Amino acid sequence: MSSTTRTAAEGLDVPARRLPVPQTPSPQMQQLIASPLRSGWRVLPQSAEEWRVLVEAAAQATRQALPGLIARMKVTVEPTLIDGVRAFIVSPESVPAANRRRLLMHLHGGCYVFGPGEAGLPEAVMMAGFGGFRVISVDYRMPPEAYFPAALEDGVRVYAEAIKSTAAKRVGVFGTSAGGALTLAIVLRAKQMGIALPAAIAPGTPMSDVTKVGDTFYTNELIDNVLISRDGLCDAAAKVYAAGHDLQDPLISPVYGDLSGFPPAILTSGTRDLLLSNTVRVHRKLRQAGVEAVLQVFEGQSHAHYLFDDSAPETHEVFAEISAFFDRYLER
Amino acid sequence: MSSTTRTAAEGLDVPARRLPVPQTPSPQMQQLIASPLRSGWRVLPQSAEEWRVLVEAAAQATRQALPGLIARMKVTVEPTLIDGVRAFIVSPESVPAANRRRLLMHLHGGCYVFGPGEAGLPEAVMMAGFGGFRVISVDYRMPPEAYFPAALEDGVRVYAEAIKSTAAKRVGVFGTSAGGALTLAIVLRAKQMGIALPAAIAPGTPMSDVTKVGDTFYTNELIDNVLISRDGLCDAAAKVYAAGHDLQDPLISPVYGDLSGFPPAILTSGTRDLLLSNTVRVHRKLRQAGVEAVLQVFEGQSHAHYLFDDSAPETHEVFAEISAFFDRYLER
Repeated sequence: MSSTTRTAAEGLDVPARRLPVPQTPSPQMQQLIASPLRSGWRVLPQSAEEWRVLVEAAAQATRQALPGLIARMKVTVEPTLIDGVRAFIVSPESVPAANRRRLLMHLHGGCYVFGPGEAGLPEAVMMAGFGGFRVISVDYRMPPEAYFPAALEDGVRVYAEAIKSTAAKRVGVFGTSAGGALTLAIVLRAKQMGIALPAAIAPGTPMSDVTKVGDTFYTNELIDNVLISRDGLCDAAAKVYAAGHDLQDPLISPVYGDLSGFPPAILTSGTRDLLLSNTVRVHRKLRQAGVEAVLQVFEGQSHAHYLFDDSAPETHEVFAEISAFFDRYLER
Repeated sequence: MSSTTRTAAEGLDVPARRLPVPQTPSPQMQQLIASPLRSGWRVLPQSAEEWRVLVEAAAQATRQALPGLIARMKVTVEPTLIDGVRAFIVSPESVPAANRRRLLMHLHGGCYVFGPGEAGLPEAVMMAGFGGFRVISVDYRMPPEAYFPAALEDGVRVYAEAIKSTAAKRVGVFGTSAGGALTLAIVLRAKQMGIALPAAIAPGTPMSDVTKVGDTFYTNELIDNVLISRDGLCDAAAKVYAAGHDLQDPLISPVYGDLSGFPPAILTSGTRDLLLSNTVRVHRKLRQAGVEAVLQVFEGQSHAHYLFDDSAPETHEVFAEISAFFDRYLER
């Protein structure tokens, strides 16, 4: 038993163990949960060129899968420029009457460096398709093109432009991982600027604390098969994005922001998510600030697994919950 | 890296690690999180007499702490019999006007064997004190006095009697662990009986699946310093309670029940909780059944840590959330 004793000072020693694949998730989700840790995850890019190769390889895979997803979701995608910022308009084949005057804005994930151009679209396409919403997906600037606060500024610029033609009370903002953090940071920035806040937000497993504080950074290390480690690729990428800025800046780590006055929020995570703590910490801070905030946590899922397979019932469930939440809080 | 590879068939091998105590919870909660695993947790009672000694030792510690808690919470406690079932009436010194016609019913935790008599009262006392509600705490029969379904029958009997004098729409039911499972099972039984359901329920980290299905039985094994292991004391106790009945019976493992038509529910857990999966699985099943159900998960907490120290801000926060939830859904 000596291997499992601990003291307050030293922490808790946990022995090696083998985790079976949980049997209650859908077969599609079980397959994702059973995926091995990405080989070579310990090898971090050491140069801009190494980052470029990695980002492009991931983007290529996503772009190849995108036409199929767009067809299944029955949406159209149009590139555009909004106040000088690259973006895509994602439109369902038919928009339900209730959503005709509503608009969602999407910030894609990818640790602030992945998902350039169309590679950032899958979540926006699923939201438009599953939810029947018009979506603007912001193709915000990323390293090496630009660093913090460029991504945030691009998001804020598109948001400010969007609420000129669609009243903010009919606008929702959503995104996962870095996109979840940007969703929160955009609201913080909008508060500072004194412009109208969106009617509701949906930050999915947000990178709300890139200082690596959060208990599940430890408990789910080497268990989350997407992010894998607090010292992994996403941590390195966030530092590239921050480019020397204080990582505790609430516009980079929004869990440190003043969340009072925030619009209703729905947060999503999984029991194996490395960012489960950073999701529930934001949820608690929102509730402490008196904000209407709901949390959904899915059995066995690692970081953002709900975006990986549009045929999984859990994926449908996540978007159905977010859609119902937006339907509840966005004016028609 | 060989130690962290896995296949779908074999599961994921996770190496040994040391978990620091998370720094964002309150000092009181950090102290609970830093507590060592109970020594001797692997030694399970082998006879009725060994169970009795263990239960009595725990009960004695709780009874010693109870007068202080009752004084701090400013409540009174009166033993009573309700339709032949032992119970306690826990009354706040002053009941807010909004709660005068409302009533809560409490089912204590303790793996169906711990917490006899006054030792089952702390959660009821905190609910009455923090929330300003009148509470009936059911001192349901436990082994070796009686086995499944005695505890459930006692709870149902008190509930049926309570709603004769207080309309069910003004009644809430709550409890943690075994008490969370009993809360769910009472609603399942009330549905079967065709009697009015409570207006809202608050199952805290419910023992919703005693078949040991649930991913966090594995991921949080030897991390949760309260329940410790899926093969620990609570599992052994649940089997004593079930006394040979099918553990998948929804009245024993309510996650397998038909949760449609359930009243609004608020569920509570922690990121280190061995029953986090069993909490979120109930949450998802409630949502899938169209039930208004909210989830709160607290950073770093093991099973039911929110009941251990009434001075911890997190304890106050849990009861404030549950109180607000009851206030929202119970008619005045």
